[in-house]
Amino acid sequence: MLYFEDFNVGRSWESEPVSIDRESIIRFGREFDPQPFHTGGKPAVEPPFGELIASGWHTGSIGMRHMVDCFLGNSASVGGPGLDYLKWPNPVYPDDILRTSIAVLEARISSSRPALGLVKFNVIVRKQDLRPAVEMVPNVFIARRLEGSPI
Amino acid sequence: MLYFEDFNVGRSWESEPVSIDRESIIRFGREFDPQPFHTGGKPAVEPPFGELIASGWHTGSIGMRHMVDCFLGNSASVGGPGLDYLKWPNPVYPDDILRTSIAVLEARISSSRPALGLVKFNVIVRKQDLRPAVEMVPNVFIARRLEGSPI
Repeated sequence: MLYFEDFNVGRSWESEPVSIDRESIIRFGREFDPQPFHTGGKPAVEPPFGELIASGWHTGSIGMRHMVDCFLGNSASVGGPGLDYLKWPNPVYPDDILRTSIAVLEARISSSRPALGLVKFNVIVRKQDLRPAVEMVPNVFIARRLEGSPI
Repeated sequence: MLYFEDFNVGRSWESEPVSIDRESIIRFGREFDPQPFHTGGKPAVEPPFGELIASGWHTGSIGMRHMVDCFLGNSASVGGPGLDYLKWPNPVYPDDILRTSIAVLEARISSSRPALGLVKFNVIVRKQDLRPAVEMVPNVFIARRLEGSPI
């Protein structure tokens, strides 16, 4: 079980690869981002990327899932206040394979809630050709390992 | 059909309200953010908000859906390069009702792709008590209305 004290600056993780298929791209697009290039519809204006691509909310959510699988699911995380930024530098196509690199950028004790730490992560979701699909800096509150807490 | 020229700074939209139920919170949480406070499981550390809450990726995606419903679905959008920031100031509980306010913050012609404009939006997803659940600044590429284009 990981507590705030375990998140040393520079500590890093690499997720397992996951493939994203046409069906899941369209399912997410229809629910949350129904623009034609996310649902397989006919666009009014031809996008520069030319084909069906995954919503950035979908690929960002895959990065979140990778954070949980790598370490957050086995941590004293109590949720996050947000992201410093979120970038989608390259489009994600059906059957692309995504893998996420995560590193601790910064760690500090929360001034408003001193039983918690606030950890800032650098997160990059890459495609099979290593080009980044998502770059983001999320912040997560993680409980401190106080005296007598289970480890 | 809205082109770049229609996105005047200050133009604004208000979405329809949408309710978010326990089942959809858990479904999204299990797929993308399986921390116990998003799936109804037992947390290792009691979070300060104390109950099941929606993943911020879920509520952010609802804000995206509201942007599409308000205007992007009827526009020459060709996707976005990312968000300047994304904040989750207040937790979202089952049966909360979410409504999104969107305003144009900035609009400029893309230097790398002069047939496109880049529009920066201020987006706030609010709960029924008007407290913000999501605050974000997405950027979207929108085609310019060139001579001879249909309007």
